[in-house]
Amino acid sequence: MQANIQAEILNIGDELLNGQVLNTNASAIATMLNRIGVKVAEILTIGDDAQAIEQSFAEGLKKYQLLIVTGGLGTTKDDITKKSICNYFHVGLKDNLQMKQHIKEVVKALNRKVSDSVFTQSMLPENCKVILNPYGIAPGMWMEQGNAVLISIPGVPMEMESMLDEIEQKVVAHFHIASTIDMHFKTYGIAESALSDLLDDYENQLPSYIKLAYLPQMGIVNLRLTGHHADAKMLAKEMNCRREKLLEIAGEYVFSEENKPLSLLIGDALKAKGQTMATAESCTGGLIVHQMTSNPGSSLYVKGGVVAYSNEIKTKVLHVDEQILTTVGAVSEQTVLSMAANVLKLYNVDYSLSVSGIAGPDGGTAEKPVGTVWIAVANKEKAEAKCFHFGRGRKNVVERTVQTALYLIYKLIQES
Amino acid sequence: MQANIQAEILNIGDELLNGQVLNTNASAIATMLNRIGVKVAEILTIGDDAQAIEQSFAEGLKKYQLLIVTGGLGTTKDDITKKSICNYFHVGLKDNLQMKQHIKEVVKALNRKVSDSVFTQSMLPENCKVILNPYGIAPGMWMEQGNAVLISIPGVPMEMESMLDEIEQKVVAHFHIASTIDMHFKTYGIAESALSDLLDDYENQLPSYIKLAYLPQMGIVNLRLTGHHADAKMLAKEMNCRREKLLEIAGEYVFSEENKPLSLLIGDALKAKGQTMATAESCTGGLIVHQMTSNPGSSLYVKGGVVAYSNEIKTKVLHVDEQILTTVGAVSEQTVLSMAANVLKLYNVDYSLSVSGIAGPDGGTAEKPVGTVWIAVANKEKAEAKCFHFGRGRKNVVERTVQTALYLIYKLIQES
Repeated sequence: MQANIQAEILNIGDELLNGQVLNTNASAIATMLNRIGVKVAEILTIGDDAQAIEQSFAEGLKKYQLLIVTGGLGTTKDDITKKSICNYFHVGLKDNLQMKQHIKEVVKALNRKVSDSVFTQSMLPENCKVILNPYGIAPGMWMEQGNAVLISIPGVPMEMESMLDEIEQKVVAHFHIASTIDMHFKTYGIAESALSDLLDDYENQLPSYIKLAYLPQMGIVNLRLTGHHADAKMLAKEMNCRREKLLEIAGEYVFSEENKPLSLLIGDALKAKGQTMATAESCTGGLIVHQMTSNPGSSLYVKGGVVAYSNEIKTKVLHVDEQILTTVGAVSEQTVLSMAANVLKLYNVDYSLSVSGIAGPDGGTAEKPVGTVWIAVANKEKAEAKCFHFGRGRKNVVERTVQTALYLIYKLIQES
Repeated sequence: MQANIQAEILNIGDELLNGQVLNTNASAIATMLNRIGVKVAEILTIGDDAQAIEQSFAEGLKKYQLLIVTGGLGTTKDDITKKSICNYFHVGLKDNLQMKQHIKEVVKALNRKVSDSVFTQSMLPENCKVILNPYGIAPGMWMEQGNAVLISIPGVPMEMESMLDEIEQKVVAHFHIASTIDMHFKTYGIAESALSDLLDDYENQLPSYIKLAYLPQMGIVNLRLTGHHADAKMLAKEMNCRREKLLEIAGEYVFSEENKPLSLLIGDALKAKGQTMATAESCTGGLIVHQMTSNPGSSLYVKGGVVAYSNEIKTKVLHVDEQILTTVGAVSEQTVLSMAANVLKLYNVDYSLSVSGIAGPDGGTAEKPVGTVWIAVANKEKAEAKCFHFGRGRKNVVERTVQTALYLIYKLIQES
C-alpha cells in the first residue's frame, strides 16, 4: 500500500475559461478520487494553448503522483492534447489496433456517414495504454513517467464519466491503494450543525483510516463513512462496528442506508409494492413530478400530477373548496389536505403528495412570511399535513420543499 | 485604454477539491470578465492551505494583471484568506469603519442573536479598499501591487454573484478598459454548424475589436456580438452597422434580440397582453411548467399545468379520446392537439402547449424511435402540432423538448 497519493486535475479548454461551460468534470473526478482516498491537491483549468499544456504537464508530474487531464482530444484543430503529450514525452504517434477496432464499431453503430478524420483518432502516443471510451471515439490514455502517472481523457462529460470506473480500478491497482469501504446514511429531521454536535465524540474516536463526511442537501443530510485499509477483512469488521455505533447515536434520524437520491428510493419502494403515485403542486410548479419522472422507467409508478399555480385551478381542477381558499387561504393545512386527497382520487393512485407555500420574493405576510410551506401526503387510509418554514430565497424554498415532500411520501410508503 | 488584460481566477476551498461542491463561481466570474474583454488565462482551485494560498498569490500576481480570489473569508478556523493576504503583502489588520457599520446593519436585519465572531469581520488588511457584500458579512477586498490587482471575495455563490457588478465597474475603471457593447440574437431553426457556415464570411470580415460568439442551448442558438473600443461613439455606430448586416444574412432565424431565457420572454409577452398560459406535459414530466414558474411573479401569467405521464391520465384528466390512444398512440399529432385544446379549456387560459414523446432509454419502436416528440401549441382560435426527432439521451430529449415547446408558444403569442 502506497499512502498519501496526491493528484492534480488539469482541465483543458477555452470554453471553460470564458465561462461558457461549467466545469462539472473536475468535481466528478474529484469525487471519485476522494472516495478511494487519493487527495486532490489542485484543480487547474487552462486554454487550448500548447505551451501552457506542456508546462502544466511538467509541473503537475513533478509535484504529484497522478495527473488526470481532460479535454483537447477531438478532431478539430484546437484539439492539441495528443500532440502536447507526444512533445512532452518525446514520443511519436502510432496506429493503435485496439482503438481502430473500437472506432469501427462506434461508427458502425452510428449508422451514418462520418468524416474520415474520425480514423485519425486511432493514432496514439507510442507510450500510452488505451482506456476505451464506451460513448465516443476520443481516446483515454494512460502514460507513466517514473512513479508518476498521466491520464488523458475526453472533456465531453458523458464520455468522461463513462470511463471513471475503469480509471478508478486502474489507479487503485497501480498505486496499490488500500481497500475502500463506503457506507451511507441518509438523515432527516436534524440540521447539519446539530448532527455534527451529536456525532462530535464519535468522529473524534474514529481510527485515522475511517473518515466521516457530511453532505447536506436541502433538508436531508447525507453522511458518508469511508474506510481505507490494506487489511480488507479487518476494515470490514471495523466498519461494521462503527456503523452500529453511529446508528446507536443518530439512528433515529437515519431513514436509508442506500446511496441513492430520494426519488429513486421512492421508485424502488413503489415498484416493489406494484403501486403508484401522483402530485398536486403549487409553489414547486411541477419540480417534484419532474424529479420523479426523470428516473428511467418511472412511468411504471408515476401517473403524473396537477400543477395548480393559481387558486382558480386549485378549485376547478383539484376541487379544493372555494370557502377554504377565501377563509384560511391557499397556504394552509386544509388546502394541502384537500389537494392531496383529491389528486389521489383524480389520478386513481395509491399515494399522493401536495405542496402550497410562499416561495417569494413577494407574497409574504406577517402571519405567513416568505418560506412558509404546507405539505401533505396521503394514501387511501389517511392524509397528513405539516407546516414548514424554509427561510428566504425562491430557489432555496422550492428545493427544500421538494426534498421534504419526497421524504414525507417515502416515509408514508415505507409505513404502509 | 490598456489592451490585453489577462486574469487568473483562484478558488480556495477543500469542498471544491473533494468534489462536494461544484465550482460555479469560476464560470460566473469568467463570464463577466470575458464580456468586458479581459482574458482569463487560468482558473486554479486549491485547498484551505496557507502555503499554497500565498504561493498562488505570488505566482498569479507575477503572471497576470488581475487575480480574483474566492473563498476562505468566513469566521471559522479554516478560513485563512485574510491572514494569507496580510502575510503576502506584509500588512496588519485594521478595524474598517465602513465594514463595521455594514455588519451592524446586516445583523440588525437578521433580527436574531449572532455570535460575537461576526464582528471580527470588520478587521481588514490595512492596504485594502472594501467592496461591500449586500447579502452577508464576509468582506470583498481590493488590493494593489504595482500594476497588478488582487480582489478577494466570498465563496458563497449568492454573495459572490451579488458583488460582480461592482467588481466589473471597478475593473473597467482601474484598467481604463475600453467601452463594451453587447448585442444578442436568439435563433431557432438552424443548427450551430449551419449557422456558422452561413456567417463564416461575415465573421471573417468583422474588425478585430468585434467578436461573434455562439452559445448553443438545446435547439436554440444564441449569438453574442461583443465590441470593445476606446472610441465609444465610433463603436456604437460600427456595432449597429454589423447588427444590420447580421440580420440581413441570418435574420430569418432570429426571434429575439433580448438577452433573456425564453421563459422570461414569454412572461414579458403575456404580461404585456394581460394573458395567461398552461401546459399539458407527458415526456417532460412537468419541467416546462416548472421553468415557467421559476420566474418570480409568474403567478400573474401561469395558471399551472397537467402532467399526464400515463395514458389513463391523458384520458381521464385531459379528456383525450381513448380511441386516439389505442389507434395512433400517445405520441401522435391527434393526442397532442387534443391535450393542448383540452388543457386550454380546463385551465381557462389564453395559450397552452402540450408535449408527448419517447424520452428513452426504453419505449422506442422502429416507427417511433427514442427521441420522437410531438409538440402542440394552442390559443382560442387555433391549435398546431409538429413532430420532432431529438436523438438519444433521456435528458437531451427532455431538454430539447422544453426549449422547442417554449419557442413555439412564444411564436404563437407574438403572432396573436
